[in-house]
Amino acid sequence: MIAEQTMTTAEIAQRFNTLAKEGNWNQIQDELFAENAVSIEPPGAPGLQSAEGMKAIKQKAKDFEQSVEEMHGGYSSDPLVAGNYFAVAMGLDATFKQMGRMKMDEIALYEVKDGKIVKEQFFY
Amino acid sequence: MIAEQTMTTAEIAQRFNTLAKEGNWNQIQDELFAENAVSIEPPGAPGLQSAEGMKAIKQKAKDFEQSVEEMHGGYSSDPLVAGNYFAVAMGLDATFKQMGRMKMDEIALYEVKDGKIVKEQFFY
Repeated sequence: MIAEQTMTTAEIAQRFNTLAKEGNWNQIQDELFAENAVSIEPPGAPGLQSAEGMKAIKQKAKDFEQSVEEMHGGYSSDPLVAGNYFAVAMGLDATFKQMGRMKMDEIALYEVKDGKIVKEQFFY
Repeated sequence: MIAEQTMTTAEIAQRFNTLAKEGNWNQIQDELFAENAVSIEPPGAPGLQSAEGMKAIKQKAKDFEQSVEEMHGGYSSDPLVAGNYFAVAMGLDATFKQMGRMKMDEIALYEVKDGKIVKEQFFY
């Protein structure tokens, strides 16, 4: 029997970084998130809302994808890792069906517990 | 007449980085923080508490300094900048008068408005 090793925060951040730079956000959710993870948007943010649990988080991602008419560009920085947290600067340039073309930049902060991301929080 | 230029978030982050690497935290507060800035610690964090306004934030810094018996080391990473925010990984290794020697690492997140830091929030 081979015991499954719990990934460290640095290992999670590294895997996140590899997948984010491929734009593989679905795989990040499937592979790195805990089932009861929460996703926190800023209070009063237009459009996106906080979500609790992977079912709601995946629905949120799907709603976002469907709101986009055309994606012009995006980026995700290398992560900063400290303790059980890692932070990433990310952004996108997209034309939305309802709002036209917008650029946005944000700090995304991830909390890791028992080898899974249990919280993502966006600051913009 | 020369108009005073409002510093951008990237400029604030760069100046913060220079001063942090010198360990000049008092100068960071004096030069870069807004008078009504807030400092947020994690809910339930032992020891340190959140503070509102520069008077309370400076008192908090003073209390922290006085709690330290000996500082063995510390670091502050280069900042990640996105929109009105920047994030830094930082840590220290210190012997505290009450608690003995401890190492800690955290993500510190700064929000900038009108060329000043209006919020610092620590994640650990």
